[in-house]
This record gives sequence, structure tokens and C-alpha cells, in this order.
Amino acid sequence: MSEKMKALAKVKPEYGLELIETPLPQMNNDDILIKVHVTSICGTDLHIYKWDQWSQDRIKTPRIIGHELAGEVVAVGPHVKNIKVGDFVSAESHIVCSNCYLCRTGQYHICRDFKIIGVDVDGVFADYVALPEICAWKNKENFDKEMASIQEPFGNAVQTAYVDELVGKTVAIFGLGAIGLFCIPLAEAAGATRVYAIDVNEYKLNLARKLSNKTICLNAMKDDIVDIIVRETDGLGVDVVLEVSGSKEALINEFKVLRNGGRISLLGIPAKPIELNLAEQIVLKGINVYGITGRKMFDTWYKTSRLIESGIIDIKPVITHSFKMENFQEAFNLMETGNCGKILLYP
Amino acid sequence: MSEKMKALAKVKPEYGLELIETPLPQMNNDDILIKVHVTSICGTDLHIYKWDQWSQDRIKTPRIIGHELAGEVVAVGPHVKNIKVGDFVSAESHIVCSNCYLCRTGQYHICRDFKIIGVDVDGVFADYVALPEICAWKNKENFDKEMASIQEPFGNAVQTAYVDELVGKTVAIFGLGAIGLFCIPLAEAAGATRVYAIDVNEYKLNLARKLSNKTICLNAMKDDIVDIIVRETDGLGVDVVLEVSGSKEALINEFKVLRNGGRISLLGIPAKPIELNLAEQIVLKGINVYGITGRKMFDTWYKTSRLIESGIIDIKPVITHSFKMENFQEAFNLMETGNCGKILLYP
Amino acid sequence: MSEKMKALAKVKPEYGLELIETPLPQMNNDDILIKVHVTSICGTDLHIYKWDQWSQDRIKTPRIIGHELAGEVVAVGPHVKNIKVGDFVSAESHIVCSNCYLCRTGQYHICRDFKIIGVDVDGVFADYVALPEICAWKNKENFDKEMASIQEPFGNAVQTAYVDELVGKTVAIFGLGAIGLFCIPLAEAAGATRVYAIDVNEYKLNLARKLSNKTICLNAMKDDIVDIIVRETDGLGVDVVLEVSGSKEALINEFKVLRNGGRISLLGIPAKPIELNLAEQIVLKGINVYGITGRKMFDTWYKTSRLIESGIIDIKPVITHSFKMENFQEAFNLMETGNCGKILLYP
Amino acid sequence: MSEKMKALAKVKPEYGLELIETPLPQMNNDDILIKVHVTSICGTDLHIYKWDQWSQDRIKTPRIIGHELAGEVVAVGPHVKNIKVGDFVSAESHIVCSNCYLCRTGQYHICRDFKIIGVDVDGVFADYVALPEICAWKNKENFDKEMASIQEPFGNAVQTAYVDELVGKTVAIFGLGAIGLFCIPLAEAAGATRVYAIDVNEYKLNLARKLSNKTICLNAMKDDIVDIIVRETDGLGVDVVLEVSGSKEALINEFKVLRNGGRISLLGIPAKPIELNLAEQIVLKGINVYGITGRKMFDTWYKTSRLIESGIIDIKPVITHSFKMENFQEAFNLMETGNCGKILLYP
Repeated sequence: MSEKMKALAKVKPEYGLELIETPLPQMNNDDILIKVHVTSICGTDLHIYKWDQWSQDRIKTPRIIGHELAGEVVAVGPHVKNIKVGDFVSAESHIVCSNCYLCRTGQYHICRDFKIIGVDVDGVFADYVALPEICAWKNKENFDKEMASIQEPFGNAVQTAYVDELVGKTVAIFGLGAIGLFCIPLAEAAGATRVYAIDVNEYKLNLARKLSNKTICLNAMKDDIVDIIVRETDGLGVDVVLEVSGSKEALINEFKVLRNGGRISLLGIPAKPIELNLAEQIVLKGINVYGITGRKMFDTWYKTSRLIESGIIDIKPVITHSFKMENFQEAFNLMETGNCGKILLYP
Repeated sequence: MSEKMKALAKVKPEYGLELIETPLPQMNNDDILIKVHVTSICGTDLHIYKWDQWSQDRIKTPRIIGHELAGEVVAVGPHVKNIKVGDFVSAESHIVCSNCYLCRTGQYHICRDFKIIGVDVDGVFADYVALPEICAWKNKENFDKEMASIQEPFGNAVQTAYVDELVGKTVAIFGLGAIGLFCIPLAEAAGATRVYAIDVNEYKLNLARKLSNKTICLNAMKDDIVDIIVRETDGLGVDVVLEVSGSKEALINEFKVLRNGGRISLLGIPAKPIELNLAEQIVLKGINVYGITGRKMFDTWYKTSRLIESGIIDIKPVITHSFKMENFQEAFNLMETGNCGKILLYP
Repeated sequence: MSEKMKALAKVKPEYGLELIETPLPQMNNDDILIKVHVTSICGTDLHIYKWDQWSQDRIKTPRIIGHELAGEVVAVGPHVKNIKVGDFVSAESHIVCSNCYLCRTGQYHICRDFKIIGVDVDGVFADYVALPEICAWKNKENFDKEMASIQEPFGNAVQTAYVDELVGKTVAIFGLGAIGLFCIPLAEAAGATRVYAIDVNEYKLNLARKLSNKTICLNAMKDDIVDIIVRETDGLGVDVVLEVSGSKEALINEFKVLRNGGRISLLGIPAKPIELNLAEQIVLKGINVYGITGRKMFDTWYKTSRLIESGIIDIKPVITHSFKMENFQEAFNLMETGNCGKILLYP
Repeated sequence: MSEKMKALAKVKPEYGLELIETPLPQMNNDDILIKVHVTSICGTDLHIYKWDQWSQDRIKTPRIIGHELAGEVVAVGPHVKNIKVGDFVSAESHIVCSNCYLCRTGQYHICRDFKIIGVDVDGVFADYVALPEICAWKNKENFDKEMASIQEPFGNAVQTAYVDELVGKTVAIFGLGAIGLFCIPLAEAAGATRVYAIDVNEYKLNLARKLSNKTICLNAMKDDIVDIIVRETDGLGVDVVLEVSGSKEALINEFKVLRNGGRISLLGIPAKPIELNLAEQIVLKGINVYGITGRKMFDTWYKTSRLIESGIIDIKPVITHSFKMENFQEAFNLMETGNCGKILLYP
């Protein structure tokens, strides 16, 4: 392996990214070194690219970004136990402490002191990346490489949709980014008897239509979401709302279409605080609200891999574009338009 | 409506049934009178037909039998509140007291003092039947009549399969009577990633194959069930066993193929006590065992109707034969061979 | 029984109440007639007394108010099944339809079409009240009468505190009205290992101290709530927050002291919409929020009666005053000061 | 630290134990070395002492036995991360692989490939013991040493009693060995409204009476268990049975006193297979049966320590005797009589 590698990094605290040449990562005793085969772009990467307020507060430059990948293990540190050179791995993006109350009770994903790959430490948009063994998810040898890379955000969707059972239930998904799109086959595969998919972007709604001809796709700019859903559910409303939009306008509708005693999974991150009428929206309706973040380590990963391997879920249509890493500029330009599903980046 | 009706009854305490002429049923204040359109035969009816020990202990003759039906309401008692003449109904077969601790906490199906239609009171194999309003399940007008009749045993299968979530799980169904057969599409519709269906009767295995080309059908007389399932689940075993066979031999295999921490639903009724090695089969493996009986009133009924109406479950192939009630003898002869799925009886 | 009775009513759409003479209530076929022995005043009654915006929008005058009571059944309608003359009863304040999806699946408390006693129909601050049988909770003969009356709001507290298990958990209760006070012994009786009780009113904090010498009572006007709780829970925060204050300032602190992955029960009704930072307060912390209203019919009532009868909960100290109904003005004046626990009214 | 240490071992494959002198344990990279302060005797140790069939099949001699201890860490291996010299620790007795499906989904206690300390590897009845870091539970400095040692079996009781909530429930505990005795304060602390404790040994029943004056203690040799419990629960039966006896006779009663829809935790290990009438005991009653083994790592340990530290549970009276390790013969003789609670052994 060469002494230098290419990587996509935020070099200076300003808009944009640079493709840099940099030494191979240093490895700690618990680390594995991964030769990156394919990566995928997350909304978080776009935030960092655009250098928004959150990024300015959180990111220290220079920083190699990216956290979704699939690759091959080419070296392991002396304390590594269960991963071997040659293993084909994906990565959990949360580097957890393993020692706090939350980690020790199976709640690693909300560890008191976790770091995020490509945010708090150098990331995977590079030829190689060194990660603690605990982040490694070993795929079966013949697992599809692209699926392997997008398994991490797919895991977010699994957490969002499967916080409780869906069989026999009606579901409304608000926001059709990659995670919202993943939720469509997830809801159908788990026995939801009626699924609504809602966005304001026709490109994304068309992707949803490609994923399923049973799910009812609605455009919040054109359709009267509340009227349609309430009417079609006999005035009751849906049993389950999956909030993956982060939109204030969506939230208002979400509480209107959710039935008494229903549940709502919140994964979307609103840009700023939102005014809620707790009494009418939550208390008097007896609603359960679930804040969703990350993936259960590793329950969720077993689920993602089983769902993909068994073929009962096909999320390939969510991948709409792929670029070489050197053409990253095109990829991020496209991300900014919103007219895309998941975008792959190849080192 | 005429003064007399035909009905299928156990007239004397001996093997067999008779088609009798009898007055129309008396109605109580809370009763509805149903003109029966179609009925279906349950294993319980066969027990009574054969006059086995259980029947001798439980049934008082004369008794009109049968509890699965679909029909039209033709009269309602003065205290009836929510059912109207003309409603198209199925029936919950448990007549519950509504007033005990169990009924008052949503556990009607295990009411301390319930009676079973066609067992403890006169049943539905007749032109008309009078039932308390609480047993009525109102179907939508265009609901399929045959499905309406078999909804009751289908509800048993829903209880068995859906006692907890199935998404991403491996499942083994032991026993392919109607309820076991129903469990196949139920498991698949809820996201089970691998389903095994096991019986010793090739007719029933062929029915299973018609229901699904994904489910793996095994013949316990020919296949090494334990070896196959354990091997194909990487030595772990399945996450879930659905016991709907009542067979001692099956039970032994069931605990062998169930993984540590797995769950088993017991619906099958063994003919006699069975010796269990609690330590090895349940305690040290950390197994959860769920005794299943009846249907939740009316959570299960909402689920059965939604699953059928939405079209995500198709159980029509489970119905293999239909007879006029006057030809009941043929129907029961066929039941005794075991070479059938669900049999319909038309008054 | 006399032809006329006394009752406390909102006669005209304005501030205050009047003690009136009025005919005995009319009974429907499903109704029972209760001779009222004791009643208790709820915050809702105070809202109506003060004729705030909510009351003006909801209440049609004239209206007898009040919904917490204990009394004796003196007559039953012809369709009544399980309640008899002479029974000693309390009342569930929600009159539910029994026929909607929610009622038919054990979620009566969020029935699509319920009415509230003393709000939508005439209430219990009277010598007699007629209520549908379904509202009746039959107490054991020797059940304490005062406890019988306050069982209804105590049930709210049971719902709030026991939405999930508490054993081994740390709990913070915000707001020490009657329901918040009830939550103190409820949390302790269920095995909470540390309980915080928070208010701004010293009278109520003193009541809390009377209820328990283990619970840590904090005054939000004097104590640094967040600092104390976070420090004393090793920086983790509490596992459970019970929000029974309806206060915006309290809510801000509640999300700060709640640990990642914790749960919050919302029963308090804020006077107006509240701005929430969903990302930081709920999503990224993986918080579960439970909207709480009413009581499960009748799981909660079995729990309230068992807890009181067994003696493991003593809520008597929450009752601080009692008045004759003719002295209602004094009672409501006192309510307005906030320097009271539960107040009893005797007809 | 000296070159040699004393230890209690099964030296030859026969009845009894020997106090031996042996070199200090070898440490692996992940190991910690503990100077043992106090240990306690488990039923498993007695099985090995008596050299019953199970022991003969499982134990390879020579083997130092024992797995309950409290002690101080005096050395740590080079790969140890979170434990330091000087830490005061107890030990989880299951050495788990950390890498199988079960370990990676938070079900360490039923790991596919675990070893038990003092059974499959050398144990803690010694001056020193070397254990993998993953077994270490770090106690607070001022945690009671005796409690620290018996925390492991107390954890078994926590698993047994707290498999689901107990608040407002009636509970029957069958078998008053140490774990059954622990279940008494556990049930009371979690809000059980009525607790029955059943055994045939008056010494143990007297211990139960010392632990609580509210729990109802019954002697199965003298009292008609079924009649008393069913009568006192209004004919319903108890909500929860905790089976910690391993007795066939007890099991028969347990299913008789358990109400429809109730739950039973099975921790006791019957000496041989037991005949069950699944239909009547489990299926038709809708019973849930939970196989219980080990402790959740580390949810259960957090619970045990919080319960003890908070003072809401006092299990000290369960400890009835203590011996120097050199007087082990006396201790095991006493164990054989059954007239004891927990016995401590001091190195």
C-alpha cells in the first residue's frame, strides 16, 4: 500500500470541499484499516460542504468527511479480536465509549460520549480509513457492495419505521429523502396495510412511485394531505407517522393525520425550534412520540442485512447516481438541487 | 321467515351428526338473529362428530354445532345497540360475560366464564342462528363471504403468529392444518425473512406450496427437520416457532430448532400430557412460551379484516372444498382423511 | 327520594357558580341513579368557575358541574346489567361510545366521541346524578369514601407514572397539584430508587414532604433544578420525567434533566403552544414522549383500587380541606390561592 | 503477593472438595487479577461438592470452584481498558464470547458459547482469581462487601421477578432458597399488592417471615396452597408465579394458582423431565412462560446495585452463616441440611 492517499476534506472553515493528498491514517491498537471500495453521501456531508451554522459549530478543520462506506480490511491493530484482514466490512458511524451506563445497557447509539466518523474524526471519503474495531460490521462475502455502503442510512430508516410493529397498520411517511424512501419498502414488508408517502419534490415522489405501486404518493404542494388521509382512513387518521422531513409545515399536518393513540417517529432534524400545541397534538390524543437517532448496535445491523440478503426488501432504486471521488463537485452540486436519491462516490 | 329450519346437530351422545328440522332459535333481549349464508368446519366440529372423550365430557345433546359463519342480520333484540337488520356479519365464537376482571381489562378471550357457540350453546350449522350482539363482527358490505366465514380461525392464526413482531425474523411453523397454513402468508406479510412449514401429510404440504413459493416446506417423515433448520440458520436456530400441530414428536423438534432467547407460540392442543425437559428446553435457553387461545376482542378482528381487505394476505387457496349442508356426511368423511384444507358448508 | 335536589351549576355564561334547586335527573335505559355522598374538586372545575377561554368555548349553560364522586346507587334503568341498587360506586368521567375502533380495541379513554361528565353533560356536584352504567366503578363495601371520590384523578396519576415500569429508576415529578402529589407515593411504591418532586409553591412542597421523607423536594424558584438533578445522577440525568405542571418553564428543565433514552409522560395542559427544540430535546437524545389522558377502562381502575385497598399507597394526606356544598364559594376561593391539596365537597 | 495461594477445589472425580495450595492464576491479556475478600456458596457449588450426575458430565478435574465473590483488583492485563488496580469488584459468572449474534444484540446471558466461572474454568473460592475484564462489575467504594458478593444470585432473582412489571399485581413465589427469598423484597419493592411465599422447609419459611411481615408464608406440607390462594384472590388466581423451586409438585400447584393470562417465570431446574398438560395449563389459559437464566449484562447489574444502594431493598437477612474457607466442610454440611440461607466463605 502506497504512502499517500487521496481524500475529500474540509480544509478551511468555508464553503466547499477539496480533494487532497494526505498520509495514510495512523492506527490505534483497537483499529482496523479499511481499503475503501465505495462510499455514499449523506445529508450531513452536504451540511458540512455548505458550511452551515451547525458545521461551523461542530467541525474542526482540516477534516476528511464521509461516514457511509463498504471496503476491505487490509490491516488490524494488535488488540483487534474479531475482525480479520480480508473481511468485507461496512461501518457504524458512531464511535462509542463502550463503558458508560448507556453503552453497558445496550443503548450504544445514545452513548454519553460518542464521536461521529467524518464529523468528529477523519472520515471515509478517502482511499483508506482507520476505524476502531467496534465500528466494523462484517458483511457476507457476496453481499452487494452498494447495498453495503448504504446500509448505515438504511439502518436509520429501520430504526424509524420499526420502533414498534407495523403489521395491519396504516402509515404516513413525511419527507422522501433517502431515509424516507427506504421507509416505503420497510413499511410494506412489515405488513402495513396502507402507506402514504409525502413530499413537495416531484423527482422524489417519482422515486417513491418506482419503489412501490401500492404506496399512495402525495405532493404536499398540490394535494390536501390532511383531507385525503383522514377521509381515506374513515375519519380515524393513520396509526403511525414517520417524520423524516424536518419540516415545520409537515409536522403540523403530521399531528393532524395521526389518530388518537397513534405513534410518531421523529428522525428529521428541524432547522430551528418549532411551536407545538402539546395539549391538542399530543396529550389529549394520547400520542406516543419516539425520538430516533442512529442504529441499535447491532440489532439494527442484523435486521438490515437480513432484510437485504433475503431479498424481501429492494432498495436499489433509491441509488440514482454515482461519481468518481474526483468528480465530487458534480455530486454535491446535484445534492444541492434535491433532484436525486442516494449518490455513490467511488475513490 | 319460515317457522322451521334445518340444522346439523349432535342429537344423541354417539358418533356422527344428523340433519334435523327444528324451530327457529329463541332470541334474548341482547340477541341478533342471523340468516346463515355460509359456514366452515373447524377441527372442533370433527371432534364432536367423532364423539371423542373431550366431546363426551363437554357436549350436552341435543346440540346444533358449528361456530364459523357469515350471514345477514334479519332481526335484533330490543337491547341491541350497534347492529342493525341488514348488516353482514361474522361471529366471534366466544360468548363472554363482559363483567369479570378479564373482560373488563381487555382480555375477553380468556373470560372466566365464557361459552363457545356450537359447543356450549346451539351453533351456526343451521339456516338461522341467534347470538348475543357482543359476538357480532360487522363486515363491510363487499367483503368476500367465504373469507368472512373463515375469518374466525384466521384470527387464531393472527394471534399465534403476531404475539410479537416478526420482521427480520426466521420462523418455523409446525402443523399445516388450516391455522398452520394461514400462518404462512401471515409470517411472510409481516417481514419474516425465512419461513419453514412442516407437516407429515403431503396433501397439506402441497397446499403450503401453493400458498408460497418462498416458504420452505419440509416433511417430518422424510426430512431431518432439526438438521436442516439448524444448518440453514448458521447453527443458531429459528427466532420463532409456531406450534399448531398438537403433536408430541413435533414439540421435541420445536425446542431443538428454537434459538436461545427465541419464542414459541402454543396453539395446538396435544391429546394428552407431554413430558418436557424444562431445564434444557426452556429455562437455560431463556425461551418465551406463549399460550394462545381465541382472538382478542376486537383487536384481532380489526387486523384480520384489514389484512384481507388490503389484499396483502390471500388465504383463499386454504379453502379446498365446499358442500351443501345436506351433504355433510361427505364433508366429515373428507375431514377424517386429513386430505383437505378448509371445508365450507352451505345451508 | 324528593322531587327536587340541590346542585352546583354554571347558570349563566360568566364568572362563578350558583347553588340551585332543580328536578332530579332523567334516567335513560342504560343509566343508574346515584345518591352522591361525597365529591371532590378538579382543576377543570376551577377553569369553569373562572370561565376562562376554554370554558367559554366548551360549556353550554346551564350546566351542573363536577365529575369526581362516591355514592350509592338508588335506581337502575331497565337495560342495566351489572350494577344493582345499593352498590357503592365511583365514576369514570368519560362517557364513551363503546362502538368506535378505539373503544373496541381497549382504548376507551381516547374514544373518538366521548363526553365528559360535568362538562358536556350534567355533573356530580348535586344530591343525585344519573350516569350510564359504563361509567360506574363498583367499590368494595368497606372502601374508604373519600378515597373512592379521589380515585378518578388518582387514576390519572397512575396512567402518568405507570406508562412503563419504574423499578430501579430515577424519577422527576414537575408540578405538585393533586396529580403530581399522587405521583410521589406511586413512584416510590413501584420501586423508583430516587424521586424528585418540584414545584414553586411552598404549601404544595410541604404537602409533598408530608407524603414522603425519601423524595427530594425542590423549589424551582430557589433551587437550581437542573444542576442538582444532573449532579446527583452522576451527570446522566433521570430515567423518567412526569410532567404534570403544564408550565413552559418546567418543560425546558424537564428535557434538560432527562437522560438520553429516557421517557417523559405529558399530562399537564399548557395554556398555550410552546416552542420546542425537537432535535436537541427529543430526536438526538432518543427520548420517548407519552401523551397521557384519562384512565384505561378499566385496567387503571383495578390498579387504583388494589393499590389503595392493599395499603401500599396512602394518598389521604393529599386531601387538605372539606366543605359542605353550600359553602362552595369558600372552596373555590381557596382553590384560586393554590394553597391546598385536594378539596372535598359534601352535598 | 505470594507465589502460592489457597483454593477450594474438586481435585478428583468424586464426592467432596479439598483445600489445596496452588500457584497464582495465569493472566491473559484481557484479564484482571482479583484478590478475593469474600465469597458465597451457590446451589451449583453444592451439586459439584456432591458430585451428582450433572457435575460428572460437566466438570473436568482438577477445578477450583465458586463464582460469587467480592474483591479488589490487584493487577490488570495489557488489553484491559476500563478496570484499574484498586477497583472493588464483583463478578458476572458467565464468560461470554462477545462476538455471536446473541452477544451482539444484548443477549450476552444466553451467549452461544459461554463458560461458567468455577464450572468450566477455575473459580473464586481462592485467595486470587483471574477473570476476563468483561466479567468485572465495578462496585462503588463504600458498597457493602457481603452484598457485593451475593449480588450475582440477587441478579438472578431480579431477572426472575422483573421480567415484566409487578405493580398492582399478586405474586406467588414457590421455593425459598436464596433466590426465592430475594424475590420477596423484590416483589414488595416493585409494588406487588399481595405476595405469597411457599416452601416445605420451616427454617426457610422463618427466614421469609423475617424478610417481611406482609408477605403471606405458606407451608406446602401443611397448607392447602391452591385453595388458599384461589380463595384469597376472589377465585381468579395470582397474576404472577415465580418458580424457583425446581419441584415437580410445586409446578402442578403453580399452574393451578396462576390466573388466565398470567405469567410464570421459570428459574428452578427440575432434576428430571416433567409431564405437563400443555392444553389446560398453558394454551387454554393464555399463559406466558418465561425461561430465566443468568443476568442481563449489564442492565441487571445496574438494577441490583441501585436497589441495594438506595436502601429500598434489604437482603441482608438472607445471609445466615459465614465460615472461613478452611472450614468449608462445615459450610457444605450445613448446605446439605437445607437449614440455611446464603452462606459466606472467607479466604
